Amino acid sequence: MDALRGPMTDSRFFTNAGPFTLGGLADRLKGTLADRAVRDFSVTDLAMLDDARGSEIAMFADRRYRAGFESTLAGVVVTSLALVRDLADTARHLIGVAVPRQAFAEIAWLFYPETEEALGLSDERDTAHVGHGCRIADTARIGKGATIGAGTTIAAGAVIGRGVVIGDDCIIGPNTTISHAIVGSRVHLYSGAILGAQGFGFVPGARGLRRVPQLGRVLVGNDVEIGANSAVDRGALGDTVIGDGTVIDNLVQIGHNCRIGRSVVLCGQSGIAGSVTIGDGVVVGGAARIADHVTIGDGAKLAGGSGVTRDVAAGETVAGYPAIPVRDWHRQAIGLDRMFSHTKKTD
Amino acid sequence: MDALRGPMTDSRFFTNAGPFTLGGLADRLKGTLADRAVRDFSVTDLAMLDDARGSEIAMFADRRYRAGFESTLAGVVVTSLALVRDLADTARHLIGVAVPRQAFAEIAWLFYPETEEALGLSDERDTAHVGHGCRIADTARIGKGATIGAGTTIAAGAVIGRGVVIGDDCIIGPNTTISHAIVGSRVHLYSGAILGAQGFGFVPGARGLRRVPQLGRVLVGNDVEIGANSAVDRGALGDTVIGDGTVIDNLVQIGHNCRIGRSVVLCGQSGIAGSVTIGDGVVVGGAARIADHVTIGDGAKLAGGSGVTRDVAAGETVAGYPAIPVRDWHRQAIGLDRMFSHTKKTD
Amino acid sequence: MDALRGPMTDSRFFTNAGPFTLGGLADRLKGTLADRAVRDFSVTDLAMLDDARGSEIAMFADRRYRAGFESTLAGVVVTSLALVRDLADTARHLIGVAVPRQAFAEIAWLFYPETEEALGLSDERDTAHVGHGCRIADTARIGKGATIGAGTTIAAGAVIGRGVVIGDDCIIGPNTTISHAIVGSRVHLYSGAILGAQGFGFVPGARGLRRVPQLGRVLVGNDVEIGANSAVDRGALGDTVIGDGTVIDNLVQIGHNCRIGRSVVLCGQSGIAGSVTIGDGVVVGGAARIADHVTIGDGAKLAGGSGVTRDVAAGETVAGYPAIPVRDWHRQAIGLDRMFSHTKKTD
Repeated sequence: MDALRGPMTDSRFFTNAGPFTLGGLADRLKGTLADRAVRDFSVTDLAMLDDARGSEIAMFADRRYRAGFESTLAGVVVTSLALVRDLADTARHLIGVAVPRQAFAEIAWLFYPETEEALGLSDERDTAHVGHGCRIADTARIGKGATIGAGTTIAAGAVIGRGVVIGDDCIIGPNTTISHAIVGSRVHLYSGAILGAQGFGFVPGARGLRRVPQLGRVLVGNDVEIGANSAVDRGALGDTVIGDGTVIDNLVQIGHNCRIGRSVVLCGQSGIAGSVTIGDGVVVGGAARIADHVTIGDGAKLAGGSGVTRDVAAGETVAGYPAIPVRDWHRQAIGLDRMFSHTKKTD
Repeated sequence: MDALRGPMTDSRFFTNAGPFTLGGLADRLKGTLADRAVRDFSVTDLAMLDDARGSEIAMFADRRYRAGFESTLAGVVVTSLALVRDLADTARHLIGVAVPRQAFAEIAWLFYPETEEALGLSDERDTAHVGHGCRIADTARIGKGATIGAGTTIAAGAVIGRGVVIGDDCIIGPNTTISHAIVGSRVHLYSGAILGAQGFGFVPGARGLRRVPQLGRVLVGNDVEIGANSAVDRGALGDTVIGDGTVIDNLVQIGHNCRIGRSVVLCGQSGIAGSVTIGDGVVVGGAARIADHVTIGDGAKLAGGSGVTRDVAAGETVAGYPAIPVRDWHRQAIGLDRMFSHTKKTD
Repeated sequence: MDALRGPMTDSRFFTNAGPFTLGGLADRLKGTLADRAVRDFSVTDLAMLDDARGSEIAMFADRRYRAGFESTLAGVVVTSLALVRDLADTARHLIGVAVPRQAFAEIAWLFYPETEEALGLSDERDTAHVGHGCRIADTARIGKGATIGAGTTIAAGAVIGRGVVIGDDCIIGPNTTISHAIVGSRVHLYSGAILGAQGFGFVPGARGLRRVPQLGRVLVGNDVEIGANSAVDRGALGDTVIGDGTVIDNLVQIGHNCRIGRSVVLCGQSGIAGSVTIGDGVVVGGAARIADHVTIGDGAKLAGGSGVTRDVAAGETVAGYPAIPVRDWHRQAIGLDRMFSHTKKTD
């Protein structure tokens, strides 16, 4: 899948309004430039700390991730006023601001003032790269420059966004929406499934919540199924990834920047919050939910309805809310029944 | 928001088949008129006890809400046969019936025999009030007399019902449906979101369940986001209200007559049953659910996956099912683990 | 409802590529024919053990269901290599294989190499049987040979699959999809509801998970409502059944082969896994979920948010996860509160 990764923001989907000078950015953010920072330095893009390089700007706001700051290749880093002092001897250009997360969102808005959702306002299938044997319904809408692989079917009412790439022999069901996505071959999207909508990211702003631009993509492997009315959000920065052979049931929600392995089974109504990592061969039971930033090891099993708030080791089976090893959960259920229940005895 | 409230049933959305005489209504309901009731009195509409006035009919069936009966401005009240006797000295016209809730549903059917859902059978955008710079996809369907504000985009496959009002600079995503709704400005509906469907209200009838007509609206403030495949039902009588700046993630369900404050965050797959009140700045975690008629105070936080069955005070954080203060929930989880779990020790 | 049942696979929806000889099937499956099996025997179709007859093939893989094997009218049975020896004296033709479930899925693929989902690639309403007074939106798509009863409305963007039967006076809402379904009269599907998508069935295969063809139908009774963005999967073999007068709220998931009774109430976001049986008059609370193969007796009530993992007796009310009698659940909640909670005392 990583071979598919290009620059941090994919120019097929996003239009960069930069570059901006470092001094200009600092002024916009009402930020303070560190002593060594060069006002005329040209900042070309933004990226996450691990991915940024050269003339790109990244954010460093949490001391716990100091190692990430030390190893970043980002030329510019926006950070807190306190950290600017601590980091005085760095070779990077630093901007100090009151609230780095808010400032970084504003930087994202500067570079990408308009993110274009898939809207199907016009049908540009004549500009698309359409493989041999494709079938595209007349009420489907294909965005500019999209790629539709050989033998793929696009059903009625489907809306495919600008630049989307879909592989061979896929079935894209009725009334689906795909945007900001690179989709493999033999993928089946059922009716109403939504791929690549904006992730759910906000920062506090002057007038209430302010959306954080969602500048990543959805990468879907081969032989993937995505059930009716399910939704997979695109990444904020970086990608949401669904591995080969993974099958997703109906009404499942997958948040931004999740990385889901191969041959994973996600049963109906399960919900995966943002930045969750799921290993290969994991089974997520119906209506189970996983909190953000949790990692689930290869081959783990999450019982239906469980609420997983911590990492789950490879091969482990968990149940309950908060989810615990399934044997413990059974013991609790039986123990509580003995302690508090009288229905069976008295009825 | 209240400035938007008009008469109980908004004539843009509902067509009143009345008036009916009091005597005629009583006969239809096989009800008993109280002694002072005037058979020829003309009943013009129905409303909730708190909102009804003059020639409108309301229902009073539960002694606990006696204060509501005392203060109502309704000219006519349908109530139980027992209560007719207790209330003999009222100035209101009373109809006594065996099952007031069923009778009131029948009255609603009499006044509003046909509620028209948004179906998009024809495109009447030429009758709509369309602002400057609107973009409307050719496969979208606009209902009669709808208002679309300046700069608003209506994407492919969207169905906008008769009389719907949408403000300026909104994005109404692909394959959405909006009916019986007044929507503010800068509102973004993602793909597949449904606004204003019938609430889920039924009474027992002669041939099984009988639907209660849903005669309210959805009022959406400014700067609201509603995620992919989410659904917000319209009110039964009165409105479902979403406050300014509130953001709703994917696959969220909001029942009829909910009143949701400003800058509320509703994470993915959360579910709000009917007649729930949510204060400003509340955060509802992913897949959390709130039972009907519960009130959540300003700034409260509901942990992901929690099941809230009772009111939550302003500023409080709750977790679990039934939801309890989050510290207690952690204590329970740790305590139960010590009591019943042996996995970590023996493995 | 049973009068609607035809042969195991309904030729309106599925095209049988058979017959195949027993010997040919055994070779394809790399299976072993029992001594008495006749290689030239013509196998015409597949079915479940209880339904198969004559020249049809069924699967028997679990000794616990021995009684089903004894009473089956299937002419051919695929089973494990071990069971072939045990069953040597049967009159049925036996094929022994390493993994019967996988082999049976391969047999299904042989007989039904192409299952056609509803895609709306062309509008064949001129081949449909359309009753008097129907209204069909121009952006709706009607499959070949579908039947639309008198007075039924098909809204914008709805996609009706080949051979689907819809009764009189139905409202099929915007952007819905219906396939492999027989629908009664006065049924209302709200926007985005999906009827008859493939159930979620997979077997391990050589290259990861392999889909099991879903060869059943959805049978919907009269006076049924199905809420916005809900999904009802068709059966794997045999049917998913929704009884008369049942009402289903928004964002509800119903898995394959469920049998739901009459006047059942399924509140918002509830989820019913596969092969669940629900009796008449059952109330399933919001976001409640039922594990697969569970049976819920007539008139039972499942509290909102409960997770039902075992059968529930008629008339019983359960709550919690795992769900237990509601009185016990209350006792547990109160007991745990006393044991572990100090918030109320110290705050």
